[in-house]
Order: sequence, then C-alpha cells, then structure tokens
Amino acid sequence: MSSETGEHSGVTVPKGWRAAGISCGIKKNGATDLALIVSDSPATAAGVFTTNLVKGAPVRVTKEHLKSSTVRGVVVNSGNSNVMTEHGVRDATRMAEAAAKVIGADCRQLLVASTGVIGTPLPIEKIESAMPQLAGALAYTGGGAAARAIMTTDLAPKEAEASVMIGKTRIRVGGCAKGSGMIHPNMATMLAFVTMDVAVSKRALAALVKRVNEATFAKITVDGDTSTSDMLILMANGAAGAPAITTPSGSRFESLAAAVGSVCERLAKMVVRDGEGATKFVTVKVTGARSGDDARRCAMSIAKSNLVKTALFGEDPNWGRALAAAGYSGARFDPMKTSLALCGVPVFVRGRLNRPDWESTVAPKMKAREVTIQLDLGAGKASAEVWTCDLSYDYVRINAEYRS
Amino acid sequence: MSSETGEHSGVTVPKGWRAAGISCGIKKNGATDLALIVSDSPATAAGVFTTNLVKGAPVRVTKEHLKSSTVRGVVVNSGNSNVMTEHGVRDATRMAEAAAKVIGADCRQLLVASTGVIGTPLPIEKIESAMPQLAGALAYTGGGAAARAIMTTDLAPKEAEASVMIGKTRIRVGGCAKGSGMIHPNMATMLAFVTMDVAVSKRALAALVKRVNEATFAKITVDGDTSTSDMLILMANGAAGAPAITTPSGSRFESLAAAVGSVCERLAKMVVRDGEGATKFVTVKVTGARSGDDARRCAMSIAKSNLVKTALFGEDPNWGRALAAAGYSGARFDPMKTSLALCGVPVFVRGRLNRPDWESTVAPKMKAREVTIQLDLGAGKASAEVWTCDLSYDYVRINAEYRS
Repeated sequence: MSSETGEHSGVTVPKGWRAAGISCGIKKNGATDLALIVSDSPATAAGVFTTNLVKGAPVRVTKEHLKSSTVRGVVVNSGNSNVMTEHGVRDATRMAEAAAKVIGADCRQLLVASTGVIGTPLPIEKIESAMPQLAGALAYTGGGAAARAIMTTDLAPKEAEASVMIGKTRIRVGGCAKGSGMIHPNMATMLAFVTMDVAVSKRALAALVKRVNEATFAKITVDGDTSTSDMLILMANGAAGAPAITTPSGSRFESLAAAVGSVCERLAKMVVRDGEGATKFVTVKVTGARSGDDARRCAMSIAKSNLVKTALFGEDPNWGRALAAAGYSGARFDPMKTSLALCGVPVFVRGRLNRPDWESTVAPKMKAREVTIQLDLGAGKASAEVWTCDLSYDYVRINAEYRS
Repeated sequence: MSSETGEHSGVTVPKGWRAAGISCGIKKNGATDLALIVSDSPATAAGVFTTNLVKGAPVRVTKEHLKSSTVRGVVVNSGNSNVMTEHGVRDATRMAEAAAKVIGADCRQLLVASTGVIGTPLPIEKIESAMPQLAGALAYTGGGAAARAIMTTDLAPKEAEASVMIGKTRIRVGGCAKGSGMIHPNMATMLAFVTMDVAVSKRALAALVKRVNEATFAKITVDGDTSTSDMLILMANGAAGAPAITTPSGSRFESLAAAVGSVCERLAKMVVRDGEGATKFVTVKVTGARSGDDARRCAMSIAKSNLVKTALFGEDPNWGRALAAAGYSGARFDPMKTSLALCGVPVFVRGRLNRPDWESTVAPKMKAREVTIQLDLGAGKASAEVWTCDLSYDYVRINAEYRS
C-alpha cells in the first residue's frame, strides 16, 4: 500500500488520477505538508462536512466549489487548519487558485482542505511559492506521497483500494485519509479523499457519499471531539470507460457503493487504529435496543466514556463502567434485562453475573489488540456498532504537547 | 478541618450529630471503609440522586426510606458500590437494619449509601459484624473519621462548615463529600452529606436540596461519566433550638440556603480539585448566550473536552480547542462574534485575534493552579459557569489500575 517504491496506491490506483506530496515549510520539522490530487479530465464530486458551528475556511470554500458541474481535484495542506483566522476564506481561495493555475483549471474546479492547528494565519505565500514544484511532482504513483503529506499526529499514512466490474469493465476506487485526534463523527471525523475512474452523476455521487459516510466514518470515535475542518470527498472521472452511473439505485450503483464502502470502512478503521495513543481497537456492539437512535446513543456513550477507555488500556474487564455509560446515554432499557459480553465471553446474562469464573476467562482476552464489548439491552430489536480505541498515557502526552 | 486531633469538623459541627468511620474489611488495603452519621434526635431529610438508569441498590433503598417522616442518620460504605448485584436491595436494607439496631432506631430511619466497584456482591456479613464497633466509635468529633471512611480514589477527605443566625440563635451546617472520578452532574456527582442543627420542614428541605444542588454540585465535571450511586443528602435535627423553618421562602430560609450553599460550593470545588489526576482547577464561564441552556451546554462541552483538558495539563493556551468544543456543543452562535479570554487575558475579541503578543502574556498564567476560560458568545444575555480539572497522565493511571 506504500508508494515508496513507486507502486500505484490509494487515490492514484484509479485511471487518470495523479497525486503529489511535498514540503512547503508549514510544518516546523520539515515533513511534507502540501498535497495535490488531480484528475486528467473533469470529474464529478460530492462531499460531507463537519457539523461543527466553528468551520474552517476551506470547508466553506470547498462547499462553494462543489457547486461547479465538474472539478479537477483537491489541494490539501497539513500543519495549519485555517480555522478562525482573519483572512481564512481569502487564503483558502488563493490556495485553490494557485493549484488551478499550475494544472490549467478553473479556480472553482479545485477543492481545498486544511488540517492542523486552529487560529494561526495560513502562510499562504509559502503554499503559493511551492505550487509549481507540487505540480511538477504529480505522478500516477503519487497516492502514497499525498497520503503522507496530509498527516498531522498520524503515525502512518492511510490508504485503501478496491475494484469492481461495472458492465464489462473493471473500475477502481482508491482513497486516503488522515486523522487520529479530534475524531468524532457527526459527520466530522477527519480528511478523506476517494477517487474512482467510473463516471458517476453528481446526484448519484451525492447520495453515495451520504450513505457511505453513515456506514463507515460516522461509526468511529477517538475522543468525542468534533473537528472544525473535516470532510469526506468522492471524485469520479470516468477514465476506465465503463458505463456511467447516473442514478442512485440499481445494480451498478450498488456494486460501486460496495467498493467505495469497502475503501471507506478500511480507512475509517485505520483512523481508529491510529487513534492518538491507541493501544487497542475496540468494537462496541449494542443490540436489543428500542430504536436505532437508542442503540447508537448507547454504543457511542460507551465508546466515549473515559472510564471505559482507561479500563481497556489497563486490560481490566471493568464491565460496570460500560453499563454505567449505557445508563446515562439516554437509551431506554431495564438494567436487569441487559446482557453483556466482553471479547465474546458472557459476563452477565439478563442482569445476573454469568459464572463466578467469568473474570479468569475474560482477563487473558483483554490483552489482545482487538477487543469487543457487546451489550444487549433486552428492550427491542435495533442495533448499532461503533469503533473506537482505548485512552492511554500517550493520548495525554500527544495532546498536552501538541503545539510545542 | 481535620478531626485527627479530636476537633469538631464537617458533619459533627452542628449540635446533636455524632459520626464514626472504621475499617470493616471491604478495602483490600485495610483503610477505613464504613461510616455512620447519626443525629441524637429524629431529623428531617431530603436528597437528590443520580439520574443514571443503572442505579445502585442503596439509591433505591434511600429514596424509599426518605418517605419516613424523620430519619436518624446515614450509614455508608466505600470500596463496593452495591450496583448490579443479585441481592443488592436486600443487602442495602440489611445494612440499614444493622445500623438502626445498634443506635436503637427503626430501619426506615436509616439512609444508606455505597461507593466503589460496580457489580461485585456487597460483603454484607463484614458490615453487619462491624456494626457494634462502628456504633462504639460514634463521637461528637467524628466528622473527620466519617469523611475519610467514605473515600475511594480521593486523595484527601472533604469537609466544610458554615454558621448563620436564625432568629437570635446561631445554627451550624456541616458537610462531607467524596468523589474524584466518574464525576459529572445531572445530578450525579458523588456522595455528599450535610447536617444542620436547625429544624427544617421536609418540604422546605426538599426545596433547599434541589436549589443548592443546581448552584453547586451540578456545576462540576471531572470526566463526564455520570455515576450510578451518587446522592446529596441534607439532614436537619433542630438541636440548636432556633425557630423552625417551615416554608421554602422568607428571610430565615434564605439565610439557611446561603449557609448550606456555601458548604456545598466548597465541597463541590474540593471534589474537582481532587479530580483524579487533576493538576489544575479550571473555571469555564460562558456569557452572551441566547439561553441558559445554551450557556450551560457550551460551558459543559468545553469542560468535558479531552482536547481542552489535555491542553490545560500541558499549560498550552490552545484556545482553538475551546472554541471547537463550543462549536459542537449545540449552542447557537456566530463564531465571528465570539470573544475569548484565557486567565483573564483577551485572546480574541469578536472573532479577531487581540494582539500578536497575546500568547506571551497568557503563557505564564497557564502555569498557575487555577485557570479560567471565558467565552462570550455574542448571541444574548444568558451565562453559565462550570468547574472542572485538567486531564493528566495520572487520570489514565488511576483508572487503568483502579481494580488491581
């Protein structure tokens, strides 16, 4: 999945997509911090965005540019989120303009994203000066470089690919994402860009991005903090020559949805695995809820609880904390009708401890890197699943030292 | 405030109140874990309780016993919360019975509380066996011993006292509290017991406990986890001989409310100062909100944000995280009309950074033990204040190792 060796990976796996990532001097440590993902031909695009009232300027500009009939790509910087700055919208627009100029496109065909510290003016001159170099670095093997250039506290770049037959033609989907702190959906999670070489109408793509987001990125939480900058963007250029997908239904749309969903699910899980300081990947499953909303509320409450997350870090099967988090979630249930399993071992069934030896059975399983908490509320038939990570010393260290 | 030396402190400052704290063997380390607070004469009582759906058995039993016209006191154990256990209500009732027997009261005149691990059967025999010894230890200087015996991860006992003239008689109010993790109101915060030697009708006391709770314990959050066990109990025995307070209004009621409020505010702030792993006491003030609900929602969102709390631990004036937490709180405002001050230094005013040198002015102030975040939403006239602490390595350590 790496392009260190010049392999195709991530967003450059679909035909007709090039990408690049370079350093323009925003990050103090000299790491790459400017990425460009470009289609050779005009592409349709759709996105979902943070629901935070405090929105980054790039979110505003990208929403506006998505009104264009086609786009050519997206330009992204890391190290500065361009949020709550005096000339934020002007700077985000200048960033799109500079990228458009070097690839010969219209400014409104460039989407723009930024991630990093809030409230510091974007060094737009550095970005503008670096643009010719960025364009020169564009390559059909550049997916990995772009994936690395959008990282902030991420420990590893995040890329995923899938392919599927549309008619008699194999089409490809590729994506990259960044994010490891300030991760909580609604939608807000992080930055994720997904390219594809099938032609998809704007209407079908808009339906697809909503559906895929709900099934993937909306299920993850690292710390419950909804970011100001985040977006998931799908872009489709038709370069594979398969029949165009024009409506958000039918077997071709469903095939594409499965491929895009697979890419996004893997990216979303990578974000959680790389959660700041995470030592464990945690799946919280709630079943038997009275409504889907109750199920989701309850699963999120457990996944967000600092007490649950620190117990998981300590490999302590402290199920009482999970039940307490369910109890204050707002979901309606009778605690004495609930059943809970940790790592597949029933701890209690309908309100009664299962066996005196449950703890010795569960304890070794808590040491695994992947753990599950399953709670049946005994109140109905709805269910929900959430992916999260534990809360470790390193989460505190990373976030206490973030700006130093 | 300590009773090591046999001084009057906490719940035994008002006349006619005795207390004791001993070890009955619930805590593995041999620390005291059983407390009794008793009035010589029948007292009125009122309480507020956790809103968690998963409630400890003692909460159920105490709510039931509060229907009695008078009580004689409260028996409390630490080290085991008696939540989600098979015979929880039976055990909590046996605990009240055992205490009632040794002081010569009716079972329904004893309130009962437990705090500690969830889901482990209460060792009721140990508690029953220790009861004669506990009664023997009752003393008019026992407030401190009781305050220590209800501690779990608390680093220090928490006691406060106040006095006020009612008519021509000075009456006294004393309280103790425990709590340092799983602290979040709604009401749920912790255990707090407040005694007084003025006579107060049940109706007036019920109004008083609600009002005082909203003004004090409902303002604190340590980790956003609402406990299953918590309660604030007021008990009034009339031993000072002042005129009885029979209605929840009038100057005598207001005088008493001020004294009880003062005790509870100090106890609530002690709980935050002793928040698990806390290194700082943080006041979050939100002004200019469209409604009280918006103000409170916004203040709580900032106070609960792990990103804000880790930045405070790192002494980093990362105001963007506070604003982001306001943005996803659900409060209605325009980010460009907001103003934010850290430790009294305006960082930005109506959406614009105040001065380029704000950071050098603020940075040294962030090193203090008490810090404030003030956010004016520029949207209305409502305000709210919340007290919280930072999130440190020690919070993670304490909660990862809690049961080991």
